Amino acid sequence: MQQIIMKALNDLRQQKPLVVNITNYVVMNNSANALLAVGASPIMAHSRQEMAEMMSFAGALVINIGTLDSVWIERMAFAIEQANANQKMVVLDPVGCGASTLRTATSRRFSQLAERLIIRANASEIIALAGETAQSKGVDALDSSTAALDAAHALLETYGCNVVISGERDYVLSKDQESGGVSVAALNNGHAMMPLITGMGCSLSALTGAFAAVGETTGLAAAAVLGVAGEMAAEQAAGPGSLQMQLLDALYQLDEAALSEHLKLAVVNA
Amino acid sequence: MQQIIMKALNDLRQQKPLVVNITNYVVMNNSANALLAVGASPIMAHSRQEMAEMMSFAGALVINIGTLDSVWIERMAFAIEQANANQKMVVLDPVGCGASTLRTATSRRFSQLAERLIIRANASEIIALAGETAQSKGVDALDSSTAALDAAHALLETYGCNVVISGERDYVLSKDQESGGVSVAALNNGHAMMPLITGMGCSLSALTGAFAAVGETTGLAAAAVLGVAGEMAAEQAAGPGSLQMQLLDALYQLDEAALSEHLKLAVVNA
Amino acid sequence: MQQIIMKALNDLRQQKPLVVNITNYVVMNNSANALLAVGASPIMAHSRQEMAEMMSFAGALVINIGTLDSVWIERMAFAIEQANANQKMVVLDPVGCGASTLRTATSRRFSQLAERLIIRANASEIIALAGETAQSKGVDALDSSTAALDAAHALLETYGCNVVISGERDYVLSKDQESGGVSVAALNNGHAMMPLITGMGCSLSALTGAFAAVGETTGLAAAAVLGVAGEMAAEQAAGPGSLQMQLLDALYQLDEAALSEHLKLAVVNA
Repeated sequence: MQQIIMKALNDLRQQKPLVVNITNYVVMNNSANALLAVGASPIMAHSRQEMAEMMSFAGALVINIGTLDSVWIERMAFAIEQANANQKMVVLDPVGCGASTLRTATSRRFSQLAERLIIRANASEIIALAGETAQSKGVDALDSSTAALDAAHALLETYGCNVVISGERDYVLSKDQESGGVSVAALNNGHAMMPLITGMGCSLSALTGAFAAVGETTGLAAAAVLGVAGEMAAEQAAGPGSLQMQLLDALYQLDEAALSEHLKLAVVNA
Repeated sequence: MQQIIMKALNDLRQQKPLVVNITNYVVMNNSANALLAVGASPIMAHSRQEMAEMMSFAGALVINIGTLDSVWIERMAFAIEQANANQKMVVLDPVGCGASTLRTATSRRFSQLAERLIIRANASEIIALAGETAQSKGVDALDSSTAALDAAHALLETYGCNVVISGERDYVLSKDQESGGVSVAALNNGHAMMPLITGMGCSLSALTGAFAAVGETTGLAAAAVLGVAGEMAAEQAAGPGSLQMQLLDALYQLDEAALSEHLKLAVVNA
Repeated sequence: MQQIIMKALNDLRQQKPLVVNITNYVVMNNSANALLAVGASPIMAHSRQEMAEMMSFAGALVINIGTLDSVWIERMAFAIEQANANQKMVVLDPVGCGASTLRTATSRRFSQLAERLIIRANASEIIALAGETAQSKGVDALDSSTAALDAAHALLETYGCNVVISGERDYVLSKDQESGGVSVAALNNGHAMMPLITGMGCSLSALTGAFAAVGETTGLAAAAVLGVAGEMAAEQAAGPGSLQMQLLDALYQLDEAALSEHLKLAVVNA
């Protein structure tokens, strides 16, 4: 699997795919810089007057609901429709799903709308997004990871999407093209200080879009690359300020040797 | 007073209060990172469709008018009403008050509207906000600090709020709960390079909200912590770029020893 | 010419001109920090309710269409009208001109509207903005630089503006006040890693506004200062994260010695 990740990273750096982002105000700068550092070409655009054109030549669309309102919801919905019309992948980052009715309802609406979808979220957002279906299974859940995995399986079934659950351990759930079953990979990369930088998850969603644009549509490569870069950065960081700076450097520097050294990947089932 | 500040910081790091921010586009990222680095949990949200829910579980609300327009003004007003309904503290950062009629009028409207209010601003904004009342006293003012202190006293009387005037020397004015009089504390922390980073004052307002959420409603702890962190950062900084990075690290690292070493606090009157 | 640049920088640091920016969400923070680091005073404001006041005391207006929509287009147009009414320079950054019909049409509308105009863009944006006029000449263009220079000449003629084409080599085209001819200067400063930071061009546009506010209206000083600062920063940078931090430090530190050491300027014709 390390070879698959490295090939995807090489493809990304060679093809420099254009990733259209409709994301929140807080992380627009970070997300653009993370995409540039890894080798992709970010565009932040939201107007309906140009979205059809943009999606015709974009590699993928990233939708992040972090600072959502009724005006932006319709812009996002329109962009997803244009992605569908152009057979492009959509990455949905349902920020704060569960924290308000608006966010939960909007996340479900977009999950339904997108035809080629990857959902990237943390455990509580995944559980909130899956809602009752997952909760009914979750009653017997041993821990929050189990509850989130149950919820992720439910999302795969409901929306035909792939799912990345990020956290101390990341889980990547994707439909196996051959068997039709669900592959679950677990990643133990990253660093405890990463959640102290705003928009780490948002950066992961952006990178997921970049990898999807070059055909790596499981979400695994993005989670591995950000996790490894985070570890590389943490070795040089004295706090969240220097971690953020080092992380962009690490995304830029990351190569096969660094990936080999740091990658902690375990296939849970295939 | 150092013990009060340290206790508040420990409370903040333990409770990780949720601080809802409606702030300007320029500093959303900084403010979120400053809150995370010090140990709080930031949410940037503005939609009226979720603000009632948000304020029901938030610890405090921070309103910053830096990039204001008629749409955002009504969102901010609605959020303040929700904070009032939930007995939550509101921190107002009247960015650019005095620079345009719109900003001055909006700052006064919000000061009137918020029932539990801390105003955090620089001297000229405080003077502009207080307006004629302060100017009538300010004619005899020996320097801008005196004029700003007069204005701050007027604001306390008019709005029943606490006031933080930030500058080379910070002043923290609060109603003494027991005597009913006004306590004025002065802080000589900070560094001359801090104003060369955009949004330093905005970060102070955000931190003021975080401390208010754990019961430190004078504004003193936030001003002390940011000032001390700024000094710690400046020792390692070669310019405003590295200062900004080091400041987040310092907010994360700041402990009792650093506070003891750096704090330059003088009670002007009590 | 180095003396002209150094004089402009000294003037800027002494006068600290107020630069009003209506720019995109992605780079508001960067642009404000670049302006502060070099010594200017940034304001990010967009409301029509305060723009007339703002432009009455501002030194220059910077318009950047990076995250454009129909609401912001009218705000930008109104601000340009206020700049005209106050005889203030306007810097236009036509981000993504050519990438969508909306961006191309809006860029042309603003170029027409601004009475005292500097256009700062990369080669492809300049070529797209000039459109058919330039393309008819561009058929014989030897390379993209030649095509962009042809396009820039067409823009000067059509809009009576000055033009900065940024890229590996920057070109600065301005009307010579005495001869009435066009001066073309070329700069070989900067570093290959600079395009990996989002908003480098936007920072250049912001700096161009700051220099215009102190009377350096060709765009040369801004391009020289950012290029030299970029080289100084790159000497200390391990990737785009540290480059961004070092760049702000370098803008702050840049002095006559650094300018002398790094400036690589060649007058192409006068």
